[in-house]
Amino acid sequence: MPRLRLALGQTNPIVGDFEGNARRIVAAAREAQAAGADLLMVGEMALSGYPIEDLASQPSFLRAATAAVPELAAELEREGLGDLVVIVGHPDGPHEPRTLGTSNAPTAIAQNCASVLQHGAVAARYVKHHLPNYSVFDEYRIFIPGDELLVLRLKGVDVALIICEDLWRDGGPVARVLDAGAGLLLVINASPYERDKDEVRLPLVTRRATENDTIVAYVNIVGGQDDLVFDGDSVVVDGAGAILGRAPQFEEHVLVVDVEPAAADQPDEWLEGVTRISLDMPSEPGTPAASPAAVAASPLPADIAVPRDDLEELWNALVLGLRDYVEKNGFPSVILGLSGGIDSSVCAALAADAIGADRVYGVSMPSRYSSEGSKDDAADLAERIGLHYDVEPILDLVQPIEEQLALHGTAAENVQARIRGIILFAFSNTSGHLVLTTGNKTELAVGYSTIYGDSAGGFAPIKDVPKMLVWELARWRNAFAESRGETPPIPVNSIEKPPSAELRPDQTDQDTLPPYELLDELLELYITQRLGREDIIARGFDRATVEFVAKLVDRAEWKRRQGAIGPKISGMAFGRDRRLPITSRPAG
Amino acid sequence: MPRLRLALGQTNPIVGDFEGNARRIVAAAREAQAAGADLLMVGEMALSGYPIEDLASQPSFLRAATAAVPELAAELEREGLGDLVVIVGHPDGPHEPRTLGTSNAPTAIAQNCASVLQHGAVAARYVKHHLPNYSVFDEYRIFIPGDELLVLRLKGVDVALIICEDLWRDGGPVARVLDAGAGLLLVINASPYERDKDEVRLPLVTRRATENDTIVAYVNIVGGQDDLVFDGDSVVVDGAGAILGRAPQFEEHVLVVDVEPAAADQPDEWLEGVTRISLDMPSEPGTPAASPAAVAASPLPADIAVPRDDLEELWNALVLGLRDYVEKNGFPSVILGLSGGIDSSVCAALAADAIGADRVYGVSMPSRYSSEGSKDDAADLAERIGLHYDVEPILDLVQPIEEQLALHGTAAENVQARIRGIILFAFSNTSGHLVLTTGNKTELAVGYSTIYGDSAGGFAPIKDVPKMLVWELARWRNAFAESRGETPPIPVNSIEKPPSAELRPDQTDQDTLPPYELLDELLELYITQRLGREDIIARGFDRATVEFVAKLVDRAEWKRRQGAIGPKISGMAFGRDRRLPITSRPAG
Repeated sequence: MPRLRLALGQTNPIVGDFEGNARRIVAAAREAQAAGADLLMVGEMALSGYPIEDLASQPSFLRAATAAVPELAAELEREGLGDLVVIVGHPDGPHEPRTLGTSNAPTAIAQNCASVLQHGAVAARYVKHHLPNYSVFDEYRIFIPGDELLVLRLKGVDVALIICEDLWRDGGPVARVLDAGAGLLLVINASPYERDKDEVRLPLVTRRATENDTIVAYVNIVGGQDDLVFDGDSVVVDGAGAILGRAPQFEEHVLVVDVEPAAADQPDEWLEGVTRISLDMPSEPGTPAASPAAVAASPLPADIAVPRDDLEELWNALVLGLRDYVEKNGFPSVILGLSGGIDSSVCAALAADAIGADRVYGVSMPSRYSSEGSKDDAADLAERIGLHYDVEPILDLVQPIEEQLALHGTAAENVQARIRGIILFAFSNTSGHLVLTTGNKTELAVGYSTIYGDSAGGFAPIKDVPKMLVWELARWRNAFAESRGETPPIPVNSIEKPPSAELRPDQTDQDTLPPYELLDELLELYITQRLGREDIIARGFDRATVEFVAKLVDRAEWKRRQGAIGPKISGMAFGRDRRLPITSRPAG
Repeated sequence: MPRLRLALGQTNPIVGDFEGNARRIVAAAREAQAAGADLLMVGEMALSGYPIEDLASQPSFLRAATAAVPELAAELEREGLGDLVVIVGHPDGPHEPRTLGTSNAPTAIAQNCASVLQHGAVAARYVKHHLPNYSVFDEYRIFIPGDELLVLRLKGVDVALIICEDLWRDGGPVARVLDAGAGLLLVINASPYERDKDEVRLPLVTRRATENDTIVAYVNIVGGQDDLVFDGDSVVVDGAGAILGRAPQFEEHVLVVDVEPAAADQPDEWLEGVTRISLDMPSEPGTPAASPAAVAASPLPADIAVPRDDLEELWNALVLGLRDYVEKNGFPSVILGLSGGIDSSVCAALAADAIGADRVYGVSMPSRYSSEGSKDDAADLAERIGLHYDVEPILDLVQPIEEQLALHGTAAENVQARIRGIILFAFSNTSGHLVLTTGNKTELAVGYSTIYGDSAGGFAPIKDVPKMLVWELARWRNAFAESRGETPPIPVNSIEKPPSAELRPDQTDQDTLPPYELLDELLELYITQRLGREDIIARGFDRATVEFVAKLVDRAEWKRRQGAIGPKISGMAFGRDRRLPITSRPAG
């Protein structure tokens, strides 16, 4: 059988940063060539970043993206990497608009492409067929689908190339190219992290490999992009379902794997709509310019990353989402309010893991209702983590407002929260910090927060983490520290005390809300599973509680709409994943 | 030729309010029958409201929607309206999901339907073929398209029925049903208002009518739904392009029009995929139960609404958008800050026109930098409009914060704006007012506002109105009042003085921004027309100014993402019309 040495480069692109993204790809190509690889594949849209959203409707953006492809090919050639076959994802356009619409709105003028680069030129191009338009994806909105298939003949192997969603559709391009006899299937992806997604993704790759007795190489981008976290987790699976190589999650990595696909046995005639390109390659894998042929001839050690535990994986997803938002947007530091409670403690620990404690500023802003315990817990947290710590009591700032406006009850409570928002944003103004808002998914769901108060911030690290899971994460992080002989970052007291907003005397969250165990269970049914009130009640839950919770969720839609973005880690995050009207009457 | 009397009912639905929406349709049916109509058509999704967004993925919502259709048919029968043919738009489902996706996200399980009701039953159903998925529309995300056509034989006329986007596609369902010989084309729509859209919509309807020598009856819903305003403007055009009837914009109306379409000359065999239903009807139009046959026999007076002037139309769109947001969400009143400037003055006048001055609360919140002129202008405005007026100086509230945090410059300016936000929301908490935020589109574009300060609010009445147009609207509204012998609501001084945020001494907007004439022109090119920086510079604009403005726009994306919703009146509104990443590098 022919042997090919594949390199899967999971790079971390920034949307619109064509130069920087190309640099990352060239670096991966250098690493691939040094390892004796024949071919480097990087992720879907690795050259432009993903998702580009409506930038796909800006002709100037598309012209820049389109020009960046031959520029990358030329740069690879200049760098002595021209023999390497490099497959790169990028948008292409502008093309003639796909449809006429009912408004003057621009319609799709872009394509989602994979280009094959070699010897300083673009040898072939594939255009994505299937455009996901559900969940967080709006590809049908912005892209014109392709309808041609591409098969590359490399060293006597027919190698098919497709993009992400194409792999998922039964009877789609996959079936056709594999029917056409391809021995190796390359899939470039931009597939965002969701908890438990590896339980869906790897089985799919495996199924495609085994049902066609072919080798599948699946490369994914990595990195945070606004509310999405791409986890990498690139993988190569053979026709027997064995994992030949697997890249770690959440970091840039070049995975090099030797594969021995079946030799091409098809004649030159192909199915209609299949373009075949033969690429000129050395007959033996790996004659890298910069390294001896021995490198390639020697067998590669297996590079198979072991998946992390669920909570470790989740923690790392949150860390990467936060880190990349900070770094890609050029913030020197972050600031957050520390109440001594579990949410702000977890956010502070995430921030320190993401960018280092010396770039994290915590502010305790006690009111007359803050307990001594809370103040101590905040200080304890700051010390454990080693972040910058400041105390700004709010009593003297709140009182004049309460008095002038004669406020009490909820109105007065909200002033406390909003004064805290003012303080954090004032420090942000003076020092350039990104303000983190520490609300969790449960709070966001039921609107248990003060808009422009504790919800004020540029980024919400745990907005997709339900309260019960926040506790789990806190315990996991402390245990992880202990297992490494480090100081657990989160005070035990912050984990164990009853949660409270401390906006009035002796308040606890459960004065207002059902117990969090129950609440999170109801929210899972109502939000993630989209069950109606009656459906949930029919499962045996108390009618009054279900209706109370559903009403809170519906009523908070306007607040959520104005909320900060934060990393999606579930199958149904607030934001573009769940698009609901504000004005509506509940039904069902 | 056969004669048919058509009624086009432009109702104002609320999303999810199946009972209330059905009541509105029954009321329109009663009016139609009293006028001797043979057929009543109401808008796309008139039974559910539009857009339903991801409610289309909630099985319980779909079950309720689907059940509401036979229930409406039964109610019409009970009300003695069973002879009338009623065509109503609604969602239908749940169906088997359309696609499998890369996540656990639910995929489309709903259809966008038009049902034909008569004699207490559903006689026929059409499923929309073309699903718009651009601009504010996400129909491909949520609906499964239909592929069957429907032609009704009524009184010897073949009547084709389609939905909204189906009309816009050349060679789509329209061509096929008209090829099949239909003499009358009914189109039900949910087509949101855009300035100058009547310059697109009516010509299209006219083109379809004349190119096929057929009569086209086009009915649209009316009303505000979150950020969309449906304007009605239902119309009937004959094969010569003459307008036979036209409903007014922005109000509920039943338009009754007699038409004389060509008799059906096709045999019973039809084109493949076309369902034909013959409905049992009296041979003469109009034998209404509740009114004498003479009503129907007598010729109808022409009911042709005259389009309003551009600015009057725009003003009414903004009024309706605001009114319906207030009323459909059950707010007793609105509150807004009155600075004496043009934006808050226009918003106050809009609010008074929308819900009456007695439900509008204006608060002047002068700082040490507020000029006497501004304070006088705010008071003058309040008196002219007759709204509730309160003055809350902010100096004593701002000073403790400035001192404790040692703030100056932008940080101190923002505190002033945020204290004002706190005041308005405190009053909202105590009295249930909806808080209006008065920023215009130009400010939103360049981020010339304080997040959680002047941008705080539940609804933004002029968020899609550029600054220059705000002035035009103010002048128009005053002139309109004068033409009716009423007091012009907006003080001339608020219109004529140089705009200023008054956050520091002698500040004007033009200290920071280019002149508004130039700025609005650049924003039109950069945002609405989606030109790149270089494209704009190539048109002769100053490079430094273009780059400065583009940078401001790009940098303000995170603020806009957290902004209040407000009525879309342009072809490119901020919000779901323009979906851009926050994290990105500019290109082109």
